[in-house]
Amino acid sequence: MASCKILVAQGGGPTAVINQSLVGVVLEARRQHQVGLVYGARHGVRGIVAEDFVDLTQETSHNLELVASTPSSALGSTRDKPDAAYCHKIFQVLQAHEISHFFYIGGNDSSDTVRIVSGEAAAAGYPLRCIHIPKTIDNDLVENDHTPGFPSAARFVAQAFAGANLDNAALPGVYLGVVMGRHAGFLTAASALGKKFPDDGPHLIYLPERVFELERFLADVKAVFDRHGRCVIAVSEGIHDAAGQPILAQLAKDLAKDLEHDAHGNVQLSGNGALADLLCEEIKTRLKISRVRGDTFGYLQRSFIGCVSDVDQREAREVGEKAVQFAFNAGRDGSVAIKRSGYYSVDYELLPLSAVAGKTRVMDDAFISDNGTDVTDAFRLYLRPLLGSGMPDAFRLRPNPVAKILNKN
Amino acid sequence: MASCKILVAQGGGPTAVINQSLVGVVLEARRQHQVGLVYGARHGVRGIVAEDFVDLTQETSHNLELVASTPSSALGSTRDKPDAAYCHKIFQVLQAHEISHFFYIGGNDSSDTVRIVSGEAAAAGYPLRCIHIPKTIDNDLVENDHTPGFPSAARFVAQAFAGANLDNAALPGVYLGVVMGRHAGFLTAASALGKKFPDDGPHLIYLPERVFELERFLADVKAVFDRHGRCVIAVSEGIHDAAGQPILAQLAKDLAKDLEHDAHGNVQLSGNGALADLLCEEIKTRLKISRVRGDTFGYLQRSFIGCVSDVDQREAREVGEKAVQFAFNAGRDGSVAIKRSGYYSVDYELLPLSAVAGKTRVMDDAFISDNGTDVTDAFRLYLRPLLGSGMPDAFRLRPNPVAKILNKN
Repeated sequence: MASCKILVAQGGGPTAVINQSLVGVVLEARRQHQVGLVYGARHGVRGIVAEDFVDLTQETSHNLELVASTPSSALGSTRDKPDAAYCHKIFQVLQAHEISHFFYIGGNDSSDTVRIVSGEAAAAGYPLRCIHIPKTIDNDLVENDHTPGFPSAARFVAQAFAGANLDNAALPGVYLGVVMGRHAGFLTAASALGKKFPDDGPHLIYLPERVFELERFLADVKAVFDRHGRCVIAVSEGIHDAAGQPILAQLAKDLAKDLEHDAHGNVQLSGNGALADLLCEEIKTRLKISRVRGDTFGYLQRSFIGCVSDVDQREAREVGEKAVQFAFNAGRDGSVAIKRSGYYSVDYELLPLSAVAGKTRVMDDAFISDNGTDVTDAFRLYLRPLLGSGMPDAFRLRPNPVAKILNKN
Repeated sequence: MASCKILVAQGGGPTAVINQSLVGVVLEARRQHQVGLVYGARHGVRGIVAEDFVDLTQETSHNLELVASTPSSALGSTRDKPDAAYCHKIFQVLQAHEISHFFYIGGNDSSDTVRIVSGEAAAAGYPLRCIHIPKTIDNDLVENDHTPGFPSAARFVAQAFAGANLDNAALPGVYLGVVMGRHAGFLTAASALGKKFPDDGPHLIYLPERVFELERFLADVKAVFDRHGRCVIAVSEGIHDAAGQPILAQLAKDLAKDLEHDAHGNVQLSGNGALADLLCEEIKTRLKISRVRGDTFGYLQRSFIGCVSDVDQREAREVGEKAVQFAFNAGRDGSVAIKRSGYYSVDYELLPLSAVAGKTRVMDDAFISDNGTDVTDAFRLYLRPLLGSGMPDAFRLRPNPVAKILNKN
């Protein structure tokens, strides 16, 4: 009775562990007796409407395991955000191929696509089980303790700032690192986990959950620099003014720079170094600090091979497996969610698609310090177990000063 | 007879393993019976003239081992490039503190400082043993097979491009990564070690050893993009035109952008994203490719904590140890050099300071492909063992296409 045909696809920005979820689906589906074929769509929904499918039933489990530990989307991804007409096409293809179960690994846009396709199938009376599998480095899915992909990206950001802080301590000045995240500051906030000693950076953290004011920013930087002789700053690419206007757009306008906009009319925030450069320029010219360096972490933070959280790997695999188990046992469509059950343990639940689809989570106020430029211990407690085992640690020489001979006072 | 006083300092840009060399010096010096005190100067030569010393004889060997595995310069560093008068001050301080052995860990500028101080001591008849210990991510010291710090930075660059290639394959477009290295392209060339499958990126590599022509660059990118539907590019920050003018300066001039210059009048190449942004802008506007993303690896490539070559760690430790052994046994000043003795093994030699000081090595022609935009197998053979064990590997799903139903041709 191996009659079921499964389809799995990956959408949105790749992560370090998105293939764990893919392989979780494929291996668990291949274990189900009623499953005959497991297809993968290339480049997400775009590949579905183009019927660009690969037969994953032909893939060895050994190679699947190796693909699972490879970052980025092995099936390819897409930035397409389907509207109702697009979703109708998706449904037509699924129907033509007699797909019985559709699994889509992605963020909140992807969950919304699954919700619409699920509705189409129900309206047409076509028996299709639709399951959304969470994934996003932004960690902005509601109803989830966190999302697969975020822990590994957070680990990269924490390690990057731990190193940048050491570099900045050796050659003092101002260092500013711009981190991904348009609406949610979780990934930028992860920079705080790179701190160890009390005077370590990042000394200032700017999140999209708080309004960014250039004058206050400059005063903050000056205060830290006056105190420590150096300053390490983490900035979210999504910082904005009180009107919600991105700071990048505001600073660039003053320079009459052209900015790229996406299909939704949003300013393209990633993929260039403009925000870091513009903020560094302000620090240099206004605060008269000579050594000011800015890095934009860019695609490294989500694609770097060899910086992954083992907790993230395990959970990403499990949400894929659980998706298949829910599909065959729960009797309804839904979105797989991660719920924290202990310190540290998790359980998985199947939520209604409408509970997750198209919604955006941001950082709780309890995670952000009162002054708005640091995180709280509650956030450290939340994030630390997600980063996994083997986090590198930084050590210092102890100060044992030698008496001066020539320069006595 | 524990009468000798040792001084060790670190100069120039930090690396992932520079503290291995520091700890190699300290632990080996503390084993020598004639050594009474081991001092470290904070922030390189700047700390010497300021007599800003710490007593490393008071440090536990356990903490020293932990510091050894921490990236960046634990003693602090400096960009000061001493002239004769500055070196005279250094010598006066060494004399006042009765320092008998001076070890300076750094690149070619640092070796030149050691050379001048060595000459001062000789001219004054003061018995001072001066040893330069190699360090630079640029790998641009002559007479060395390679320099400590380069292998770990090269590993970061290779891993970064391996991941960026996977990301670019998932969401196709043009990806351009700018890598450090003003004169020598070794670090940029290391991006080639991130390639595995024949169509993997980086598809194009631009080195400072070759003249950069914007029109040829655009034609190269177009050819790759037309063939693969995507293009991953590695660019050295030091690319320049036929007259030796940095491309950054040239592109920025067209935009009337102000650029920072260092003490030597060189354009500040690192610490901003301008070159990547300007090249991406050219690709977008001239080639009409919509998805073009640029990253500048910036300080991450030399400071990232948790991406280190075990071969680099071992060798960085050994050059520190050997420096002390040479100092007490060789009977002359010099610069410790790494010589390759097998595949893969190395030996260490003490070279005259004048053989290394102030000279710059660039990539051999045998390492660069004829078309100038790739490396040769000779380079792969050279670099691979330096990257160390446990390099992450990338795997793919095999193509098993499913026949189309709705879109038959």
